[in-house]
Amino acid sequence: MTGRDGGAPLAPIGNAPVVILVRPQLADNIGACARAMANGGLFHLRLVAPRDGWPQEKAWRMASGADRILDAATVHADVAGAVADLHHVLATCPRPRHIIKPLLTARGAAAELHAICARDLRAGLLFGPERAGLDNDDMARADALVRYPLNPDFLSLNLAQAVMVMAYEWWMAADDTPARALMTNETRVATKAELDNFLTHLTDQLDACGFLRNLPKRPGMVRNIRHLFERGEVTEQELRTLHGIVTELAAGRRQFGREEGG
Amino acid sequence: MTGRDGGAPLAPIGNAPVVILVRPQLADNIGACARAMANGGLFHLRLVAPRDGWPQEKAWRMASGADRILDAATVHADVAGAVADLHHVLATCPRPRHIIKPLLTARGAAAELHAICARDLRAGLLFGPERAGLDNDDMARADALVRYPLNPDFLSLNLAQAVMVMAYEWWMAADDTPARALMTNETRVATKAELDNFLTHLTDQLDACGFLRNLPKRPGMVRNIRHLFERGEVTEQELRTLHGIVTELAAGRRQFGREEGG
Repeated sequence: MTGRDGGAPLAPIGNAPVVILVRPQLADNIGACARAMANGGLFHLRLVAPRDGWPQEKAWRMASGADRILDAATVHADVAGAVADLHHVLATCPRPRHIIKPLLTARGAAAELHAICARDLRAGLLFGPERAGLDNDDMARADALVRYPLNPDFLSLNLAQAVMVMAYEWWMAADDTPARALMTNETRVATKAELDNFLTHLTDQLDACGFLRNLPKRPGMVRNIRHLFERGEVTEQELRTLHGIVTELAAGRRQFGREEGG
Repeated sequence: MTGRDGGAPLAPIGNAPVVILVRPQLADNIGACARAMANGGLFHLRLVAPRDGWPQEKAWRMASGADRILDAATVHADVAGAVADLHHVLATCPRPRHIIKPLLTARGAAAELHAICARDLRAGLLFGPERAGLDNDDMARADALVRYPLNPDFLSLNLAQAVMVMAYEWWMAADDTPARALMTNETRVATKAELDNFLTHLTDQLDACGFLRNLPKRPGMVRNIRHLFERGEVTEQELRTLHGIVTELAAGRRQFGREEGG
């Protein structure tokens, strides 16, 4: 702890996994990891034997306001000490070696961590040092390994990016945002009657100006215009704008017609 | 292009979306974005009016080998030019303002992008500048906006982290790695007969040493031991190790017994 009181008003959210950075080398990365944890709603950070000691100002500078995560971070001499009070430990590992261990995707790990935390057990996520990754003894202490499905031709993942993916999946595992929705803000999606009303207005003006004078083709042309406007969810506000456009265009045409005739 | 030929042998993978960084400020971030794109199997990078010009050495230093993405990056004066040849554009936007637009999650966007690219249409993903984000005119050019579900109390996302999440979801949308699997490497999961064989060996030795001498409790104790070993998928290699452990412990006991008696 450093006694600071800056940054965003972050606090633990429910029973969430502890992030354990094992022998991290760069304070910059520790700060960036804290920022990524905050993005995903994680709070508890443990550092195992940080190479350059702790605390370090550079970490706070890189945390972009996730100060309270760094303020509350604890330092441990080894992995055994950092996981001693936990019930379940997952170890991230991009290239698992010849060991026998359950292997999870990040998404699978997030789902299992939610299930574990919902049982009031304490869980932890181990992340290895920037270059070497976790060693075999570290991995032996984990219940399971986590390997992110990523481009096998380019697995070099920055430490904070690795934390970001896990934090994001942790958040997503409890999120129910619809995959697609129309953001309408102050207005709302128009009803079919409102859309019909506009299409009638438009068709009347198109009849008046002669655009639909080919009577055998008229039903198909009207239908094609309808297809276009039915494709997306048109809002009530947009229909009012479209009514105005049609009215003004028609008025302009009439005026232009008068001028032409004058 | 800089004519370099270093880094990982990256190349485009199928028809994948173009990443468009709009008015990026820091070359470091452009390099980190290229690295994240490589992680997720994206290749095509476009830069709209990069603040400090292009190319810049710092970007290559931060790309950790994703050089070819930077080598092939193109520079455009404005968003209109950068999206001119595309059929579909999504714009990432953490805090959408008062506009009417479809809003996707990163996961929803990845699924839609795969569907669009499978139709041989060209898609692009807009990312705004580090601090300000995309402006209203940029967003008006997009078919839909993308907002990542993340901790609403801490939405400050580094540019490369934003690209990482989208690149990861792009990769995941086509990935079929099982959420959990036992990594067995050279060995395999033991059959029930192999496990029975070990449990018989163990039980025989526990009978011999007197551990199971309480005959009314014996069936329950044997069953509890079975519960433990049935819980995880024990491998054939691990069973051989367990056979060895039981044999050696029993032999040691007998020897110890002899020494005691001698």
